[in-house]
Amino acid sequence: MPQYTVTPWEVYGQLDYNKLIEDFGTKPIDDKLLKHIKQITGDLHPFLTRKIFFSHRDLDKLLERYDAGEKFYLYTGRAPSGPCHVGHLVVWMFTKWLQDKFNANLLFQIPDEEKFLFKENLTLEDTHKWAYDNILDIIALGFDHKKTKIFLDTEYASVMYKYACEVAKKVTFSKAKAVFGFDNSSNLGQIFYTAMQSVPAFLPTILEGKTTHCLIPYAIDQDPHFRITRDVAPLLGYPKPAAIHSIFLPGLGGMLNQGKMSSSEENTSIYVSDDPKTVKNKIMKYAFSGGQATIEEHRKKGGNTEIDVSCQWLKFFEEDDKKLKKIYEDYKSGKLLTGELKQILIDKLNLFLEEHRKKREKAKKIVDKFMLRS
Amino acid sequence: MPQYTVTPWEVYGQLDYNKLIEDFGTKPIDDKLLKHIKQITGDLHPFLTRKIFFSHRDLDKLLERYDAGEKFYLYTGRAPSGPCHVGHLVVWMFTKWLQDKFNANLLFQIPDEEKFLFKENLTLEDTHKWAYDNILDIIALGFDHKKTKIFLDTEYASVMYKYACEVAKKVTFSKAKAVFGFDNSSNLGQIFYTAMQSVPAFLPTILEGKTTHCLIPYAIDQDPHFRITRDVAPLLGYPKPAAIHSIFLPGLGGMLNQGKMSSSEENTSIYVSDDPKTVKNKIMKYAFSGGQATIEEHRKKGGNTEIDVSCQWLKFFEEDDKKLKKIYEDYKSGKLLTGELKQILIDKLNLFLEEHRKKREKAKKIVDKFMLRS
Repeated sequence: MPQYTVTPWEVYGQLDYNKLIEDFGTKPIDDKLLKHIKQITGDLHPFLTRKIFFSHRDLDKLLERYDAGEKFYLYTGRAPSGPCHVGHLVVWMFTKWLQDKFNANLLFQIPDEEKFLFKENLTLEDTHKWAYDNILDIIALGFDHKKTKIFLDTEYASVMYKYACEVAKKVTFSKAKAVFGFDNSSNLGQIFYTAMQSVPAFLPTILEGKTTHCLIPYAIDQDPHFRITRDVAPLLGYPKPAAIHSIFLPGLGGMLNQGKMSSSEENTSIYVSDDPKTVKNKIMKYAFSGGQATIEEHRKKGGNTEIDVSCQWLKFFEEDDKKLKKIYEDYKSGKLLTGELKQILIDKLNLFLEEHRKKREKAKKIVDKFMLRS
Repeated sequence: MPQYTVTPWEVYGQLDYNKLIEDFGTKPIDDKLLKHIKQITGDLHPFLTRKIFFSHRDLDKLLERYDAGEKFYLYTGRAPSGPCHVGHLVVWMFTKWLQDKFNANLLFQIPDEEKFLFKENLTLEDTHKWAYDNILDIIALGFDHKKTKIFLDTEYASVMYKYACEVAKKVTFSKAKAVFGFDNSSNLGQIFYTAMQSVPAFLPTILEGKTTHCLIPYAIDQDPHFRITRDVAPLLGYPKPAAIHSIFLPGLGGMLNQGKMSSSEENTSIYVSDDPKTVKNKIMKYAFSGGQATIEEHRKKGGNTEIDVSCQWLKFFEEDDKKLKKIYEDYKSGKLLTGELKQILIDKLNLFLEEHRKKREKAKKIVDKFMLRS
């Protein structure tokens, strides 16, 4: 039995991200690479210094080409099946930073068929509704509409399907079975879907008729799709996309108990729509604590920041390094109690979500500027 | 070993159409059904009286509903991979007759991805080119543009792909494997494709939001696709399409030696573009003869109309029953020599093709009136 599972459909167990790098055959983001990024960007996003983006494929080569004057574009996505929780925003916030720093175009895929194909009770009407709901959260993060195109697979299929067939012709069932674990009970749409996820990695090269390099930021569980993409690329004469991988924001129950934050577990997810009181209640009640059983014991022994979910979350949402360091130190020493720690996270999240919802409202007026349809 | 093979990709051997009806679980078109058709249409197309359309699914029920005032639409198709030969026209000529007699709308699918996915060396540029070439042959047959919509799968994918996903969700790999014989080496596009072929059988019901019945005329080798379609229909709440099946126009070499006429066998196919001399040469040289070794022997024993390809072809192309009967009698009796028989076919075909090519030229001006794109 593996101690953890990481597939596009399931993330669970005691993750060892170094082991994952070995298993998936990716490379760690080391100091040399961070230095190279900083040379270009001037500063480093906390997600980089904190190893929230921890792994990559060919990012080093992409930066060398960038230095030599070759631009690249970004591609990421969101498979809609429900409201966004804060975990979804992690990759997108970082993608927005990359867009700004590298002045890069962004293709944002909304594969509204994916979760429909993989979840029995979900309809295409459901996923279509959630697609347009989630798009507001995406736009709210501040992407530049002049450099960002968002599309739904079903709405942009007159472009997507054709090139998905080109990808699909190069992938055997045998291969898809090995990568995704398909079997006789898998439906035909599930089997084909990965071809649709590959297409945006090639689309500018196809549509502009010249080699255009691509960087895909994603949470590491999506890697199986992009291994296919990278295998197929040379067979079709397209460049292999580079990739940069994030760890997962754990659910409030902790990664070990619950895996990555999941929309289907209401109590241990914080949705972008959760009001301040709900955020407070969920964190107070469900955020797995690294604190001791009593206040006295906590003051004496201190808290365990490694397993404490509030600490882990603040790594994602407290951008100030000094503040974060002090919180960790104070919690470890026992100076900071669990309730106080949770309140810091609650205040931080509520401030963030309040701002986010304002931007989300404004996003409603500019959706059409972002959309690609055919 | 079966004595014949009939799949969407291969037709070969000594066909027994009665056995095929049993194997595929369809029903023969019997006298009762012919009578019912004639009650509505006033006369019967020679393809019906001559059992060229010989089998059906639920056509009886469709006619009963038609009597009760429920209209139906027609759906047929063409997977482009090369120029049309005269065998391709058989189903479409009959479809045109059905359109006129039942005042029926027609959806004409051009799955330009199918042959691309199944043939190693074919590109999507190739199939796209042949699609628009073949469409001229379709339009030349006289379909009413007000009642006929033609579309390419890749161009109409913004509608097609979405509903293909709905079909695909209901079909397991296990099922597709059983029906089509897929294995580990099958590519992902081949596996998904059948879902695209199902969609037009439901499309008016989907788009108009009310139950709209469908009749699909096709050569019997396409039946595996529509068995899937009919299995899936009730799962999605759509009516099962009815079907009417034709036998195959044999290649010039005869069915036993060569199977159905195939575009990839140049010498034994007559293309719509073949000039009178080419038609003459091919038939004189390659049309498998039921005649005797010498003229004297032929005069004495007569020819074998069962195996003679010219006789079989005249069943498709000589619409006058009396003339056809006389040709058969004269050939059987030895009065008509093989060369004379072939000349009758040559003249008939060249007349037909000359007219067809004129209409094909005119079709170029009205293509856009027929096309559905998204």
